[in-house]
Amino acid sequence: MKKILLIAAALLAVTAAQAQQWEPLFNGKNLKGWKQVAGGARYEARDGMIVGIASDTRRNSFLATRRDFGDFILEFDFMTEGINSGVQLRSHKDDERGVVYGYQFEIDPAPRAWTGGIYDEARRMWLYRMTANEPARVAYHDGWNSARIECVGNSIRTWVNGIPCANLLDDADAAGFIALQVHAVGEDMLGSRVCWKNIRILTQDVQKYRTPTPAPEINNVANTLSEAELADGWQLLFDGVTAEGWQSARPAMRGRFPHEGWSIEDGVLWVHAGDGGESANGGDIITTRKFRDFILKVDFKLTEGANSGIKYFVDPFMNKGQGSAIGCEFQLLDDEHHPDAKLGVKGNRTLGSLYDLIPAEHGSWERDNTIDGWSTAVIVVKGKHVEHWLNGHKLLEYERDNQMWNALVAYSKYRDWPGFGNSPDGFILLQDHGFQVFFRNIKLKEL
Amino acid sequence: MKKILLIAAALLAVTAAQAQQWEPLFNGKNLKGWKQVAGGARYEARDGMIVGIASDTRRNSFLATRRDFGDFILEFDFMTEGINSGVQLRSHKDDERGVVYGYQFEIDPAPRAWTGGIYDEARRMWLYRMTANEPARVAYHDGWNSARIECVGNSIRTWVNGIPCANLLDDADAAGFIALQVHAVGEDMLGSRVCWKNIRILTQDVQKYRTPTPAPEINNVANTLSEAELADGWQLLFDGVTAEGWQSARPAMRGRFPHEGWSIEDGVLWVHAGDGGESANGGDIITTRKFRDFILKVDFKLTEGANSGIKYFVDPFMNKGQGSAIGCEFQLLDDEHHPDAKLGVKGNRTLGSLYDLIPAEHGSWERDNTIDGWSTAVIVVKGKHVEHWLNGHKLLEYERDNQMWNALVAYSKYRDWPGFGNSPDGFILLQDHGFQVFFRNIKLKEL
Repeated sequence: MKKILLIAAALLAVTAAQAQQWEPLFNGKNLKGWKQVAGGARYEARDGMIVGIASDTRRNSFLATRRDFGDFILEFDFMTEGINSGVQLRSHKDDERGVVYGYQFEIDPAPRAWTGGIYDEARRMWLYRMTANEPARVAYHDGWNSARIECVGNSIRTWVNGIPCANLLDDADAAGFIALQVHAVGEDMLGSRVCWKNIRILTQDVQKYRTPTPAPEINNVANTLSEAELADGWQLLFDGVTAEGWQSARPAMRGRFPHEGWSIEDGVLWVHAGDGGESANGGDIITTRKFRDFILKVDFKLTEGANSGIKYFVDPFMNKGQGSAIGCEFQLLDDEHHPDAKLGVKGNRTLGSLYDLIPAEHGSWERDNTIDGWSTAVIVVKGKHVEHWLNGHKLLEYERDNQMWNALVAYSKYRDWPGFGNSPDGFILLQDHGFQVFFRNIKLKEL
Repeated sequence: MKKILLIAAALLAVTAAQAQQWEPLFNGKNLKGWKQVAGGARYEARDGMIVGIASDTRRNSFLATRRDFGDFILEFDFMTEGINSGVQLRSHKDDERGVVYGYQFEIDPAPRAWTGGIYDEARRMWLYRMTANEPARVAYHDGWNSARIECVGNSIRTWVNGIPCANLLDDADAAGFIALQVHAVGEDMLGSRVCWKNIRILTQDVQKYRTPTPAPEINNVANTLSEAELADGWQLLFDGVTAEGWQSARPAMRGRFPHEGWSIEDGVLWVHAGDGGESANGGDIITTRKFRDFILKVDFKLTEGANSGIKYFVDPFMNKGQGSAIGCEFQLLDDEHHPDAKLGVKGNRTLGSLYDLIPAEHGSWERDNTIDGWSTAVIVVKGKHVEHWLNGHKLLEYERDNQMWNALVAYSKYRDWPGFGNSPDGFILLQDHGFQVFFRNIKLKEL
């Protein structure tokens, strides 16, 4: 019996050592440990809550912790009287601009229902829109809601009422304050309240207490593959530092990278500005190997008036003359400022179109899911079926290597290239069209 | 007991009355009842066989029955030493040309293996190619084979070694002689033999003794539906006599048939020759109702240099101006003699093409399955999927109402017609392009 008691005592000791060391961030009585760092909203401790009262029509207001936090798990309950709000994570004050910037756990009572998403306040804006996790848009409801946020290393994950909402990998900030936002409001909403309570934080052994089933992931750490991406079979086609995996598309320069026309800096691969000619400066670059069935993701950023393209099924030996190597092209174009957007047939030379063949379907969502001017092109190839996506929206799809495809090609610029687009595989190409264009996060999954 | 015996006797009597009354056509000893009516081959009665010996390099030879036969079931065994042969049915002698003409049960030891098919000797040539019944091409073998032929009314059906081979409906000849052919041969085959034995015929109650499971049917009786076609859901869009079911495509002439530009004679609907203008003479005609999913079969015969077309998904109200009504077109063109075959893009205006959009795949088989200059166009529409067939061969297929279709249309003549080809249904049209063109056997099956 004594022995059993000893064992029980030992087990209790272990359990105690493993117990989660939660620390309240709000004492329930006053705002000790907090400090208003921006905006004119009023914050009060009342009835065990921190109450933020909308009082500023111009500036967002923030009540920040006096301490900074790096890796942590944060839990709190929140309630808003219809106004937009949020909780800053690892954030900072920009004294020059007089604003708070950094990660924000979104509180969004509007019909869009993006509560639980991650916004980069006063910096890059949306990092994790809830369009990336549609089912979780039902998580938020009127009245009190519970939030859980896990910040560990590059990972920020959120839950609302137990439902996984966001799962972001981002490396902009490793630590900073936590702050309660009361958004600037219209005159009609002055006096509306946002309330928080039961605010507690865990900073010890956070890795151990992470929730094992997060939301779908967005990896915003440049030129890396997350564990989930690796497990899903993704590979990097650009390592962020070297030109490995790429070569000139010019047969005469096979195996060599045209450093005279392309640069790699700060994790970005970019083509130099030239006179706007097709492959006239450094020339196009292609992968060092061919690909057959794949999903290709490329983040790109255009300069004003720029023209470039991502080609696939490329045969670099087909075009013996000047100009770009031959292949199907996901057109990259500043539609607003480059004249080619108006040329071609019914828009088949606009951004995301299959160049000179199939017009992209454009929509008001064109700028959805962009971050800091970066867009994401996705090309899906599965046998004869091909899709073009831009920022999470499907622009077009087609079936190649059939009579209709050949009939369409016969009408286009490509009419004289034998079997255009019908090869089962080919190189992937980034185009030099004489405009400065930036690329990063070039990832491919073979299917 | 006596009663039972009486019943048994009565049954025997009935059975006897129903017994098949086979009559030998060859007595096994000499050629009594037969007469050589053409060619220089030698025929002999020997060893219970009729032996035909190839002796003519120029003319086909025939040993014919002295009697004519109309409805009958004929059986015989045959063997050929590698030379083409056949057995004439309901045939006749053309004294002027010195030839035998009419239906022929084909004996074809060549690799093509069309034994059991039906050829119209010295007249329309092939009526039932064995391409219409591929599995039966294995029926014939070297050495002795058995044949069964059932001629009843418009129906001629054949079996080789018990395997159903041909099943033809044709109304050219109701009666005539039976004749054994020895084909004209090259010098190297002179002396080769074709042998027949056990030749017997049934002429009483033949309807009753028909085999219930014939080969796939070819209905060559103009503007009729066979029982099999009716059971399969086919309808006639042209009754062979009146313009019922058709009207002018011109909105102003709605409900009226343009007799001034179209005629119906001898079971043929034909458009008059004009100056080659598009819908400038009598104008196009359309069905009186729309069709959605269907198989359309149209027999057509072009005059030299002719241009016409079969359109579908036609909206007669779309084109308010001159010219043809708007719809997808199965192009009808004498590719050899009309210049439009060389125009358009990569052959997309040739016979059978989807006009100005998708070129037909042409082949050496172009004239397969034609009878007497008549070809058969088939258009299959199932939702967004469409196929064009010519004489049993698929020329092209496509999927409409998608981005690739719209991109293709945007390059074509049809670029300015809104939603071209995307309607779920429409009228069927026969085009007046100012050339004489003949139509018959216009049949449609709704899907």
